[in-house]
Amino acid sequence: MVVLGIDPGSLNTGYGVIQESSGVLSVLVCGVIRLHPRRSHAERIGEIYRELAKVITDFQPERIALETAFLSRNVQSALKLGQVRGAVIALAMNQHLTLHEYAPREVKSAITGRGAASKEQVAFMVTRMLGLTVAPKPFDVTDALGIALCDLLRGESRNAYLPVQKARCGKSSWSQFVAASPDKVVR
Amino acid sequence: MVVLGIDPGSLNTGYGVIQESSGVLSVLVCGVIRLHPRRSHAERIGEIYRELAKVITDFQPERIALETAFLSRNVQSALKLGQVRGAVIALAMNQHLTLHEYAPREVKSAITGRGAASKEQVAFMVTRMLGLTVAPKPFDVTDALGIALCDLLRGESRNAYLPVQKARCGKSSWSQFVAASPDKVVR
Repeated sequence: MVVLGIDPGSLNTGYGVIQESSGVLSVLVCGVIRLHPRRSHAERIGEIYRELAKVITDFQPERIALETAFLSRNVQSALKLGQVRGAVIALAMNQHLTLHEYAPREVKSAITGRGAASKEQVAFMVTRMLGLTVAPKPFDVTDALGIALCDLLRGESRNAYLPVQKARCGKSSWSQFVAASPDKVVR
Repeated sequence: MVVLGIDPGSLNTGYGVIQESSGVLSVLVCGVIRLHPRRSHAERIGEIYRELAKVITDFQPERIALETAFLSRNVQSALKLGQVRGAVIALAMNQHLTLHEYAPREVKSAITGRGAASKEQVAFMVTRMLGLTVAPKPFDVTDALGIALCDLLRGESRNAYLPVQKARCGKSSWSQFVAASPDKVVR
């Protein structure tokens, strides 16, 4: 399973591709697309599309994970962020990739166990979970890797990581747990 | 010169392709992409991209004209509209088409002579200017045709339509006018 996590922004868009193979996680690529504020927003959007399309061609992710927009009160910023997100969503749809969105709290909670964790804490945990020696910089990159990680932990593939946690929540959790782990249940 | 005018919306996106050939304007195609509100916003954005890409393949416009976003106070709407616009902008950039944006007032003013004109008035004038027998419906379509018309009237090609008006405005207007129309100047 290969997941591309994206942290879209109107100036800096972080991205990271994580591969999960037999429970082992590895970063295939990560980086940030920095857009020059002097370039027109159309050129910036075109560049984001092209750069991410290249990442998809090179690393063939099966899924794209995106953070849901954090909305300030500024409509102009919301429009700009929306435009970047629209390009990313169009790319995912054009490449027939599954797209999943996660709220920032959900990502932080999946990575650090605390929905209100700081960016530093997310960067620390992402670095540790992925077995990296140093934290990638800037935070846009660790955020993007965190989103991809969240997708691997919370998405369709979460059985591979959190079978017990999954069995503990949800409606038919106990019966699922019994079915999944017959050896752990004393009858 | 073939121009594709687009009136992007999160539910209905109007489009219209106008061809200008030796001063004669003709509508090559126009319509509206209606998106089902129950579909996910990602699916809707993918559909807009695909439908408009088909229009571009079929009618080969050289330019895309877009209305600048009318911003309400609602950040959620701004984000949604931004996402649709982002897909359209990414499409224009991917197809290497020139993209021009016009403010709603600018479009209305170019078509009706009044920046605060009603949608009905724009529809009436668009129908008349394009020699159509009936006004295309809904207003999303006439708005999109109006945007394409505005681009033809105001864009790089405006010399073809408004040589005198152009000569009258701008910094070096008089010298331009003299150079362009030597027969009209009494020396």
